[in-house]
Amino acid sequence: MDEFARIARFLAPLATEPGAYSLRDDVASLSLPPGKQLVVTQDTLVEGIHFIGDEPPALLAKKALRVNLSDLAAKGAEPYGYLLSLSLPERCGDDWVEAFAQGLAEDQKAYGLSLLGGDSTGSPAPIVLTVTALGLAERTVRRDGAKPGDGLFVTGTIGDAYLGLKAVKGDIESHPFLLSRYHLPQPRNTFAHAIARYATASLDVSDGLLQDAAHIARESDIRVIIEADAMPLSDAAAAFPLERLPLLSGGDDYELLFTAPAVAEADLRQAAATAGIRLSRIGACTKGQGLELRQNGQVMPLPDQLGWKHS
Amino acid sequence: MDEFARIARFLAPLATEPGAYSLRDDVASLSLPPGKQLVVTQDTLVEGIHFIGDEPPALLAKKALRVNLSDLAAKGAEPYGYLLSLSLPERCGDDWVEAFAQGLAEDQKAYGLSLLGGDSTGSPAPIVLTVTALGLAERTVRRDGAKPGDGLFVTGTIGDAYLGLKAVKGDIESHPFLLSRYHLPQPRNTFAHAIARYATASLDVSDGLLQDAAHIARESDIRVIIEADAMPLSDAAAAFPLERLPLLSGGDDYELLFTAPAVAEADLRQAAATAGIRLSRIGACTKGQGLELRQNGQVMPLPDQLGWKHS
Repeated sequence: MDEFARIARFLAPLATEPGAYSLRDDVASLSLPPGKQLVVTQDTLVEGIHFIGDEPPALLAKKALRVNLSDLAAKGAEPYGYLLSLSLPERCGDDWVEAFAQGLAEDQKAYGLSLLGGDSTGSPAPIVLTVTALGLAERTVRRDGAKPGDGLFVTGTIGDAYLGLKAVKGDIESHPFLLSRYHLPQPRNTFAHAIARYATASLDVSDGLLQDAAHIARESDIRVIIEADAMPLSDAAAAFPLERLPLLSGGDDYELLFTAPAVAEADLRQAAATAGIRLSRIGACTKGQGLELRQNGQVMPLPDQLGWKHS
Repeated sequence: MDEFARIARFLAPLATEPGAYSLRDDVASLSLPPGKQLVVTQDTLVEGIHFIGDEPPALLAKKALRVNLSDLAAKGAEPYGYLLSLSLPERCGDDWVEAFAQGLAEDQKAYGLSLLGGDSTGSPAPIVLTVTALGLAERTVRRDGAKPGDGLFVTGTIGDAYLGLKAVKGDIESHPFLLSRYHLPQPRNTFAHAIARYATASLDVSDGLLQDAAHIARESDIRVIIEADAMPLSDAAAAFPLERLPLLSGGDDYELLFTAPAVAEADLRQAAATAGIRLSRIGACTKGQGLELRQNGQVMPLPDQLGWKHS
């Protein structure tokens, strides 16, 4: 199948938004609801860097979409739609594209958004996937609004993806839950409305909790104190007799790390319970700069590298 | 320099829109003017497919931006901003990124838009560039609005990029104008307001004029008649004793091909003169389907392939 035929067959059915014109034009044209902010984010996944290449195409599709959905959730935005750039080597044939589109279709339904457009090209070697996600927000929560006295909160559990990666590498015993947490983020979009309402600063944990907490500290010009004992671990992660520190700099958690005034805690817990999401207070903000990590009442030395270096 | 440092040094200064937060957050947050449509388009350029790789970085930057700007112009939209995904192999060092950013800076100034965000990753081999452009339109001109009786118009000249490519390959004598037309599109954004006001169907000529005219015919359910004798050629192109047909299917012209009611012709010519853009009426629309190509009053056979097959 040539590019036109592939787009018409596999991707056009995903363009449910009328302004996407079933991908039969060069642009999408959107009439957004008045009074909301348009929130835009973009993530690129490259074979050989962000994934191996022999993953099931539907899994890659979901991962490419979800890393962006997670950014929208962290900012308090509801998903609206996305553009997809798909650069594929010849070995990715029609079956591959069909399975990839199936993965997108499932997640579009789960998260409520439409394909809006994009581009489809060949590639001399690696698969390259770029998703540009558009969301709508009453208010966009940045990294720079944390205030002294705010609590530091995180959704879900931390370190599972790090352990999942170790299991993939054969460093630890394999575990289905940890592997699934490594292979496929579970973005917290059902909690976005609570972030928009209560959070003073927010981001999603992708580079490692410590590094991402340091982003909030720096951008908000405050000091963030993290209680390692309060860190939420899954049962699977807790079963490993490992030090906690690597879990806090492992990355790929795709949980929401945010600050909020102490008075909002009860409402946040209610919202989390309604959404079926675990919520933990893991620290606080004070005047000052940088990070402080505490364990058993003691201040711990920070690791030289707080999280992933990007490439 | 690591990724964070490169972004801060070379790309953050391009994020002039306040909602882009100097690229210090995961998203851009935009408060768009009410009453306008948001027009979104995306094009990906892959080394080894869309370019060779040893081009000056500033030229690649401009090309990646301009192919998107051309889509906005064709739809009657004004440029607003863009996201950039930059996947670079190690051989593209800081000097490369600096020169690339310089090219973006020049075109941002020339076309009036801001970097809004994006992603920067490594690549195991090819350079891959994805630009997602956002524009604003009073009205988005599609491919499907052409009516019988409308005239068919094109801006600028056709076939220069095709001849430029032949010159690059050594098939014909080299010529600076033709080479520049091949290397760097000149999108017609200063004519977008006239497209928005008068055009019934419009697109930019990227796949070859005949193929793109066929898109309008099919989507609008009309027959498009093209007069080969009326085709605007540059002096440089006219100097070659070549058949015209290949010029009409060569592609990469990035001129605007549109239909408009006959009564609008005088106003369109006035708008083109004001913008300093050549405008030619090259045909008309009638009831029916498909394309008809005429030369010297005769109906000509169409080539088997009307334009570029994508890959």
